[in-house]
Amino acid sequence: MHIIDKESFRYFVFLSSYLLNTHRNRAFETFEQEVINIFRVDLNSDLGESFGSYTLGMDDQVIKHVTSVNIACGWHAGDPLVMDRTVKAALREGTAIGAHPGFPDLLGFGRRNLAATPEEVKAYVIYQLGALMAFSKANGASIQHVKAHGALYNMAAKDAKLAAAIAEAIREVDQNIILMGLANSEMINAGKEMGLRTANEVFADRAYNPDGTLVSRRLPGAVIHDADLAISRVVRMVKEGKVQAVNGEDIEIKADSICVHGDNPEAVEFTRKIRARLEQEGVEVTAVSNFIK
Amino acid sequence: MHIIDKESFRYFVFLSSYLLNTHRNRAFETFEQEVINIFRVDLNSDLGESFGSYTLGMDDQVIKHVTSVNIACGWHAGDPLVMDRTVKAALREGTAIGAHPGFPDLLGFGRRNLAATPEEVKAYVIYQLGALMAFSKANGASIQHVKAHGALYNMAAKDAKLAAAIAEAIREVDQNIILMGLANSEMINAGKEMGLRTANEVFADRAYNPDGTLVSRRLPGAVIHDADLAISRVVRMVKEGKVQAVNGEDIEIKADSICVHGDNPEAVEFTRKIRARLEQEGVEVTAVSNFIK
Amino acid sequence: MHIIDKESFRYFVFLSSYLLNTHRNRAFETFEQEVINIFRVDLNSDLGESFGSYTLGMDDQVIKHVTSVNIACGWHAGDPLVMDRTVKAALREGTAIGAHPGFPDLLGFGRRNLAATPEEVKAYVIYQLGALMAFSKANGASIQHVKAHGALYNMAAKDAKLAAAIAEAIREVDQNIILMGLANSEMINAGKEMGLRTANEVFADRAYNPDGTLVSRRLPGAVIHDADLAISRVVRMVKEGKVQAVNGEDIEIKADSICVHGDNPEAVEFTRKIRARLEQEGVEVTAVSNFIK
Amino acid sequence: MHIIDKESFRYFVFLSSYLLNTHRNRAFETFEQEVINIFRVDLNSDLGESFGSYTLGMDDQVIKHVTSVNIACGWHAGDPLVMDRTVKAALREGTAIGAHPGFPDLLGFGRRNLAATPEEVKAYVIYQLGALMAFSKANGASIQHVKAHGALYNMAAKDAKLAAAIAEAIREVDQNIILMGLANSEMINAGKEMGLRTANEVFADRAYNPDGTLVSRRLPGAVIHDADLAISRVVRMVKEGKVQAVNGEDIEIKADSICVHGDNPEAVEFTRKIRARLEQEGVEVTAVSNFIK
Repeated sequence: MHIIDKESFRYFVFLSSYLLNTHRNRAFETFEQEVINIFRVDLNSDLGESFGSYTLGMDDQVIKHVTSVNIACGWHAGDPLVMDRTVKAALREGTAIGAHPGFPDLLGFGRRNLAATPEEVKAYVIYQLGALMAFSKANGASIQHVKAHGALYNMAAKDAKLAAAIAEAIREVDQNIILMGLANSEMINAGKEMGLRTANEVFADRAYNPDGTLVSRRLPGAVIHDADLAISRVVRMVKEGKVQAVNGEDIEIKADSICVHGDNPEAVEFTRKIRARLEQEGVEVTAVSNFIK
Repeated sequence: MHIIDKESFRYFVFLSSYLLNTHRNRAFETFEQEVINIFRVDLNSDLGESFGSYTLGMDDQVIKHVTSVNIACGWHAGDPLVMDRTVKAALREGTAIGAHPGFPDLLGFGRRNLAATPEEVKAYVIYQLGALMAFSKANGASIQHVKAHGALYNMAAKDAKLAAAIAEAIREVDQNIILMGLANSEMINAGKEMGLRTANEVFADRAYNPDGTLVSRRLPGAVIHDADLAISRVVRMVKEGKVQAVNGEDIEIKADSICVHGDNPEAVEFTRKIRARLEQEGVEVTAVSNFIK
Repeated sequence: MHIIDKESFRYFVFLSSYLLNTHRNRAFETFEQEVINIFRVDLNSDLGESFGSYTLGMDDQVIKHVTSVNIACGWHAGDPLVMDRTVKAALREGTAIGAHPGFPDLLGFGRRNLAATPEEVKAYVIYQLGALMAFSKANGASIQHVKAHGALYNMAAKDAKLAAAIAEAIREVDQNIILMGLANSEMINAGKEMGLRTANEVFADRAYNPDGTLVSRRLPGAVIHDADLAISRVVRMVKEGKVQAVNGEDIEIKADSICVHGDNPEAVEFTRKIRARLEQEGVEVTAVSNFIK
Repeated sequence: MHIIDKESFRYFVFLSSYLLNTHRNRAFETFEQEVINIFRVDLNSDLGESFGSYTLGMDDQVIKHVTSVNIACGWHAGDPLVMDRTVKAALREGTAIGAHPGFPDLLGFGRRNLAATPEEVKAYVIYQLGALMAFSKANGASIQHVKAHGALYNMAAKDAKLAAAIAEAIREVDQNIILMGLANSEMINAGKEMGLRTANEVFADRAYNPDGTLVSRRLPGAVIHDADLAISRVVRMVKEGKVQAVNGEDIEIKADSICVHGDNPEAVEFTRKIRARLEQEGVEVTAVSNFIK
């Protein structure tokens, strides 16, 4: 493997494009990925989780290091003023905008499983996505992706019916919106079946089971506290498509977007570091819409 | 006065259009209105006010008699499943769809004044309008108008800043959406100033002050209980642009849309009657988007 | 078996009490139950489920036939004005008052499982119980029992930790309050362990598994639609302490209170019938606090 | 004026009590106040305003300097777990506990006027007071006072009907609870008319109108930013019963409790200072229930 520098690559792309009379056809993409080893990944973070008089998250800090933001839509967090402010911040900082719908559980921050039906989940996603789309439109922006929040994310990762409900909601509202979900999960399957573009999300600081699912937070070793190890794992996921599972064996994983956090100064610093290291490794850090087909 | 039949009129319009090289210029509209006396009015009703296990309103009945529906957006009433169901009903019955945003006061059904700032009101309208737009889009429909609900409607009718907040919200999300508001109110003024199309709403069963505002419900005589009198007043508003105020004098009023209700069998029957009488009087009952410029 | 008339029995009790120098000791209770066959049972119904402008349930009708009411506390249903009105109705009609706490899910009417922790559930019950106690106190009444609502009821019937959370909440607020729960469930166990009085609730229209749990509503035969059969089953539960399970075998069941409904005219009529039949059978229909020790 | 030391005073009280055969009769209280100049005042702060995942206020810090806390009851702020935690903190730190009911407006933090009826306000106060009473009871504590929050406080200060609604709610739930309200306001009048004990609250950092009301925050000079001046004004209110109004003239004011804040480190430091200065001035800083009759 050999990484060429960005300028040379761009020149090469220009020439190739000219020759191929296109710079985005499938043959070329495969070429990009396989022959010259251009790796790209998105960094995403949940934003806009403040509510009324309550402030949460270091949005102003973390937004400087990510390429996509997931904006809460007023159900588990966020409110109309916060949504408007966060869309404006994303535009100012040049990050892509995603809707981050959750369960109607502000008290539990959307982190508690709720036995909602697929029909309810579909309607909840349409509602919240629509609300954020309006703020997007009012500010001259558009929605790149939808990523479910908390318990809805976790439930839909395993439950094909809930996953399909989310995918249907997106497709009916705007089929150009990308469905971001846990790598290898039912959400990714559902998105593909509906004909949506999908973005596989990976977690830098979480251990994986041999079947590609996340080790439950209730089990020991679920969270990787060594930042350097976490970063190395992410780099390997992006460049090799592999990660070591808890039992020691390597498993395949597709990493389109890495979930990072902005809750505290350490999280922000970790995000800065992970981005620096990815760029050092020749990985282009860019919003998923720039490379997901 | 003489009413010509529809077919002849259409032929006449075709010819006139040809001659005038336009069929929608202002001279022609005046001509339409003044010379051949084509009167048009919209009948609108609040729908989709059920919530979760709670059912409210005879939506299935009243929707058969109106031309526009104002759909609650989940804040003062309505929920995502109800919104979806109501949008589908409007499509099925062929009525135009409007968003009916209200204050975040489910407990008070949005009927209690809340000292929200214009900035808050603008964000609340964007949020609720966006949510309904998504259900509209998912069902292949589009939003004709926005009509504020309850206390927000009443406050914005008198408060120019709140009225401007509502108009700005609409313009930023989609400037083709019509702002429906109390005839002669600050909402109509604000809509016009923002360059929006506006629809003047009148009330069949309410008394008017000499300045064109509604007589407060707390005063005697505010509500007109005689159905025939109410209907005659409405017909006059539509055909003559006049209504008798509480002090006996005639005032000018523009009636683009008449507010009717579907809360109970009497209200539904009144709606049926008012429509029958209007059609009898040669008034075309049609959604505001068909005649508002 | 032989039923003596009430007056004779009272005289007998007076004499016995005098002789035994107590009228409430355990020997005597057994005597009452076994020798002279005095059967008592409570009829309970959920009330006060209206919210704001939304009306639910035929409270005024069903309250005339029951002996205990479970009043919603504003989380899954009910609001402060409704709670006050319902407490007043219970006082007027002479029924005992119970708190009916549920999950914070008005949209789902508290019927959707929510993964709340035992600590959260305990706090939610204290909060809702306290709110109803205040309306009770303001009206000169007191709280007889607590019965969890919907998903909380179902979850706590099987989950010992949630059941303990509910029992602890009651004990800490007022240890004289009775815990009403599904007969033979974890709620009854938890209440007994905490030293609370407990009331076993049975369902007239539901089938039972051989282990005493209810047959899931998702399975065929879960609901008994034949009113006469349902009533006969209840009478047998009360008088013999037995019910036929779905597999045909008789199981033991303690019936302190029978759950009835007031959602529709049929439910109210069924409640009236069940009471009439119970009284005909010599069963005294009275609030649980009158016979639970 | 002459201040005697605490030990001597206690000995004196003991003797007097013995002679008077009572240590709390009215003659003696007057004697205390007028002859030996014992000044007492309460310091109160709003606590327990966190909600779910949202943290607000430096509760752990400010509680060390105050004698009464006003605990949010879950409507404009606070939740059941926070209420329980805050009641426990108050018990641990020895402060008196008050309920702090507000409007159902979490989004606006209860700071926006809401046109609720007196009947609604009364029910809202009963509900919230009851909820806090249950946590109090569960922890072996009791409620000293009720102080309305934000917009409800401001509206009831001027609106005799809303003030009466609050006072009635308290009286019906527990007539031993003190009504704390703005000094000289309708709340104090209503409490007295209902036969409740009342506590006049003053603000250290706010300017007063000549009629004893607070200068609106929208007017210049409404807030006193000079901490030393603010403290001196408070000392004068407590010891002389006077304060200089915005127009320069002295007005009479009764200061039973001083409102302080714990939002930020400066507010906590100001609270510490005000208490130190009051004690230095011979003022006993103690919960209102210790001296209000």
